Amino acid sequence: DTNLFPGGFNNLNPDFLPLCVHAMQGAVEKICPEARGVLLIPENHTRNLFYLQNVEQIVTILKQAGMRVRVGSLLPEITAVTEIALPNGGTVRLEPLVRRGNRLGLEDFDPCVVLLNNDLSGGVPEILKNLEQAIFPPLSAGWYTRRKSQHFAAYDRVANEFAQLLDIDPWLINPYFATCSQINFQERVGEECLAAQVDGILQKMRLKYAEYGVQHDPFVIVKADAGTYGMGIMTVKDASEITGLNRRQRNKMAVVKEGLQVHDVLVQEGVYTFENINQAVAEPVVYMVDHFVVGGFYRVHTGRGVDENLNAPGMHFVPLAFESCCTLPNPECAPDDTPNRFYAYGVVARLALLAASLELEGIAA
Amino acid sequence: DTNLFPGGFNNLNPDFLPLCVHAMQGAVEKICPEARGVLLIPENHTRNLFYLQNVEQIVTILKQAGMRVRVGSLLPEITAVTEIALPNGGTVRLEPLVRRGNRLGLEDFDPCVVLLNNDLSGGVPEILKNLEQAIFPPLSAGWYTRRKSQHFAAYDRVANEFAQLLDIDPWLINPYFATCSQINFQERVGEECLAAQVDGILQKMRLKYAEYGVQHDPFVIVKADAGTYGMGIMTVKDASEITGLNRRQRNKMAVVKEGLQVHDVLVQEGVYTFENINQAVAEPVVYMVDHFVVGGFYRVHTGRGVDENLNAPGMHFVPLAFESCCTLPNPECAPDDTPNRFYAYGVVARLALLAASLELEGIAA
Repeated sequence: DTNLFPGGFNNLNPDFLPLCVHAMQGAVEKICPEARGVLLIPENHTRNLFYLQNVEQIVTILKQAGMRVRVGSLLPEITAVTEIALPNGGTVRLEPLVRRGNRLGLEDFDPCVVLLNNDLSGGVPEILKNLEQAIFPPLSAGWYTRRKSQHFAAYDRVANEFAQLLDIDPWLINPYFATCSQINFQERVGEECLAAQVDGILQKMRLKYAEYGVQHDPFVIVKADAGTYGMGIMTVKDASEITGLNRRQRNKMAVVKEGLQVHDVLVQEGVYTFENINQAVAEPVVYMVDHFVVGGFYRVHTGRGVDENLNAPGMHFVPLAFESCCTLPNPECAPDDTPNRFYAYGVVARLALLAASLELEGIAA
Repeated sequence: DTNLFPGGFNNLNPDFLPLCVHAMQGAVEKICPEARGVLLIPENHTRNLFYLQNVEQIVTILKQAGMRVRVGSLLPEITAVTEIALPNGGTVRLEPLVRRGNRLGLEDFDPCVVLLNNDLSGGVPEILKNLEQAIFPPLSAGWYTRRKSQHFAAYDRVANEFAQLLDIDPWLINPYFATCSQINFQERVGEECLAAQVDGILQKMRLKYAEYGVQHDPFVIVKADAGTYGMGIMTVKDASEITGLNRRQRNKMAVVKEGLQVHDVLVQEGVYTFENINQAVAEPVVYMVDHFVVGGFYRVHTGRGVDENLNAPGMHFVPLAFESCCTLPNPECAPDDTPNRFYAYGVVARLALLAASLELEGIAA
């Protein structure tokens, strides 16, 4: 998946902060060279201190890049400057947004640019509409309109073109996926479509597994096409599981963040999580600022199997910062050796970013 | 001083290689996004292995940034591919240049871009003239035409403007300088002009030293305006030293790199070298790629005083890589604390780069 409003910047290796700062300076120069004041709008969390550490880290990156930065909250209960102490010893300062005509700011702050770290799952709040200032990412990149399937369709194009250039099997960097629309889990509408798509992907996977000698049982991930935060996700190894869901399972799949009903469903090839750290399953997460890879971390989870989604609800992953910044391949090592594996992660992240830009062009068009 | 054809990339902290790679990618994107093949032209050294390690490091940065890079030598004795083993275990590969019409390359290599790491002290070789390909830095930035005094005149403008913005005394970031032309050290022509300039700068320095309570004897550095490589440089504490130079001293000042006669002389305020590492005098050297500061190192020299030029001939400095990349100031520390001191070095480097661009515009105009 590609998150355009990422949390977790606080999980990156502090050694690579200079990379983030350089990349941010480059981005500001390119997008709005005159920008000096930045208004950051975070998610509406006040108790998720780990998320707020991410907000504080984004503030730090922007400040080190030379910007004046303040954080404006969409929460109605933030009516005055609110300082929240963070577990890492820092503080994040949330302030009430003030709109004057078509400009958004704070009481004593008129920023040039609005930076969104809120994925707009519930739609675009009135206060953000028709602003004079530039907003990054654009409002149209919010989850109220974005669909995972559109992203993966764009990723298909990019990955196929890239695989052709390198003369590799695109499947190596691009898992299969399919979609079903007009699903209603609670009323059991659309189960046949979903079961058929699951079966289709499992069959294609079996062929690839045979071709490459992969000795595992294929599995797929079924998830809401518009979902985020690891809600509405399940692992399936056989199409019959779809028609045999019990009420509890169906309820779990039916609703995602902010209580939205699930209608469109994505079926995605499951990829075995091969990275292990101290016997725990670890999933790499790569971060970018502008079009530069700036590092990443592992989601390390001891309680989960290699075939389960690691961003599931209730999942308390331990972040483990990459020691590598993913930008220095070593042609003298084997392709699987550490620097080259991390570099490959970074390459996939860059392809995904290209896909996201195609996707946003499609949404805007 | 500002070196546009720097050696010493091999002296940087390897931790900051990713910064160099990012900055190089940004530069390529901006200057010639279609560039894939780069021809690097180094100085005509084959025995200075430390310099060749620098060449190899520049090759590495370019390769990691995604370029195909080869090194073409201007030396007539390089008539075939020549591999030279380096003290760090690496190898540098020099190849003979081949010119076809207005394109420069190697026998089997037609690059998009020529990157100069040769300061052209002896003028522009015929083989580099009227090339179709872009050359960076431009040929007009070579020492055959560049003058230190033009650089410092441009730096004057930049530093004054910057000091005005910050409301600080520009002297804090900009030492005094003056020039004398039509000097002939061997025939003792122009000594009076030089003595007068030396005296003028020493007097201005005494006023500043009194204003800021500096307890040292002021001194100036006298050097060739077009000189490089620390040749033709002396330290002077009183104007009378100029008229009292003996034959050996005059001969030493009269000639610089590639046997060029010195006619134009720069008199520059000497700055006490306050940084010390294990009781040794240390001078910070800051490196940039494109307009990004990417780190630096100290020239550590045990045998020299705080008032001597540390780039003098025969000087065997020990490079000590900065632990900081000079880009992360810490507003919670005092201005003199390590991160902020390194950041300030980086700021001066960025001002000097701006000055160099004004200077090159002046030369090109």
